[in-house]
Amino acid sequence: MSFDRLIERIIELKNPTVVGLDPKLEYIPEYIKRRYQNDDGCTLRSAAKSLFAFNQMIIDEIHDIVPAIKPQAAYYEMYGHYGIKTLEKTIRYAKLNGMFVITDAKRNDIGATMEAYTNAHIGAVTVGDNEIEPFGADAVTVNGYLGTDGIEPMLKACRERDKGIYVLVKTSNPSSGELQDLKLEDGRTIYETMGDMCEKWGEDTRGKYGYSAVGAVVGATYPQMLTELRKRLPHTMFLVPGYGAQGGGAEGLSGGFDENGLGAIVNSSRAVMCAYRKEGCDERDFAKAARREAIRMRDDICQYINLK
Amino acid sequence: MSFDRLIERIIELKNPTVVGLDPKLEYIPEYIKRRYQNDDGCTLRSAAKSLFAFNQMIIDEIHDIVPAIKPQAAYYEMYGHYGIKTLEKTIRYAKLNGMFVITDAKRNDIGATMEAYTNAHIGAVTVGDNEIEPFGADAVTVNGYLGTDGIEPMLKACRERDKGIYVLVKTSNPSSGELQDLKLEDGRTIYETMGDMCEKWGEDTRGKYGYSAVGAVVGATYPQMLTELRKRLPHTMFLVPGYGAQGGGAEGLSGGFDENGLGAIVNSSRAVMCAYRKEGCDERDFAKAARREAIRMRDDICQYINLK
Repeated sequence: MSFDRLIERIIELKNPTVVGLDPKLEYIPEYIKRRYQNDDGCTLRSAAKSLFAFNQMIIDEIHDIVPAIKPQAAYYEMYGHYGIKTLEKTIRYAKLNGMFVITDAKRNDIGATMEAYTNAHIGAVTVGDNEIEPFGADAVTVNGYLGTDGIEPMLKACRERDKGIYVLVKTSNPSSGELQDLKLEDGRTIYETMGDMCEKWGEDTRGKYGYSAVGAVVGATYPQMLTELRKRLPHTMFLVPGYGAQGGGAEGLSGGFDENGLGAIVNSSRAVMCAYRKEGCDERDFAKAARREAIRMRDDICQYINLK
Repeated sequence: MSFDRLIERIIELKNPTVVGLDPKLEYIPEYIKRRYQNDDGCTLRSAAKSLFAFNQMIIDEIHDIVPAIKPQAAYYEMYGHYGIKTLEKTIRYAKLNGMFVITDAKRNDIGATMEAYTNAHIGAVTVGDNEIEPFGADAVTVNGYLGTDGIEPMLKACRERDKGIYVLVKTSNPSSGELQDLKLEDGRTIYETMGDMCEKWGEDTRGKYGYSAVGAVVGATYPQMLTELRKRLPHTMFLVPGYGAQGGGAEGLSGGFDENGLGAIVNSSRAVMCAYRKEGCDERDFAKAARREAIRMRDDICQYINLK
């Protein structure tokens, strides 16, 4: 309940960032892909094994400096059940290394079905006498288009199992405004309305830093809206994608943080995973290049916020 | 491109319904669960095997009378990668039996990531020289909250691979109105706005029955909105959940069809899967009971529409 566990790790490491593990096969060094293609050929299985090896080496290099990872479910789902097994293993490995795990799945459905997604991602499933956590993430991203009964099962897991959710409010993509920026007759935009729903959904799950278990996804690519939403939603922690590769700068996104440098966690995926290419270093040095980029990102963001 | 393939199958079987395969473990007859628990214990693996056996027997019984199945991704995801393997196998088995497959996944993300979901569900993934279809469904449900660039990769697959999508417009759950029914300053509701976006997204993919490859999910539980949306969105085929167990009646949902009895496909999940319980027949007769319920549902709906 609440995001206290994550916030404490952010304070401990003085680092309000999360590394997105969205491993496209094309990002993965050739020597890793060759290793698994030699065993399994060009199959979904060999692709999924390459992904896990890649993730594992990045986690080894960043877990002592970065508080969290955010695996993006789509990049695992695209390799079928082999990919999903890699997602499970990645989550487990990150947690064994003390990291907080946010599965970026943007799941949404009616109540009964949302319960199934909840059990899958941040809850447990009962088979006979066994209770099993299929994925075991600490938090998951969700889409609130279906309203309260599509969120309630997630809230239950937040309360009972100390988990969190991030609801899509203002997304980082170019066309996010087509629907999200439209104005209602009461003067609010749709994204503000969704933000207000997050405050309400989180009401009874606030932790000692003032933030509830219901966070919001707000893109770094819309810095003014990020700043306004910070004021509007004082108990809602932000997950901020769009830094770096998507174009959001550190100064602009600093408006997403409160006066203590808390209340937001900034994601970077491609810039960290592909740092070895930008550096032009040997591909076998990819994980250390990821670490260097993670440090650069941390320092870039921390110069604009007041995190002690 | 377009839903012509599905519509032709609907006309051929004179049946505008789809059976939802959302197999909770508790729905599955004990004799099936015992069979797999004897081999694998009470594990995610045995649960997933039970699910597949259950689905397979239902497909065997209904494929000659029902045009389509709609597996709900959440109920597979909750058994981890074992469950996802069952989803893959279920889709493949249904297609081998001539059924149209709509994966109910409600996926949504920014463009680059939506491409990964597209490749997973209705497209293909490249590994080395191989092109592989991980799931290979005919259509998938999506959530349009992120706007056009979150839909575009799906439209590409619709055009190039003869696939379809259903976008959430007005969902069947009790709290769907919290966001979806709110009025914009231009007088439209949010769900009408989303519906208008579907018409636009589908514009260049209309087939010979007038319907595009971009459908809409509209709940049977809101019959008046369903009727109004039919008029408003003349090129958008509806996927209509909420019949039966959720409370939507056949007469009410007939407003979702056009004057030829086309333009909609009505889903029933629990009522079909659990028909054996309602009938009180032997659990080993579950698949035949599912067939009887599928026929009853078809006849119930067809009496109110003009499908020839």
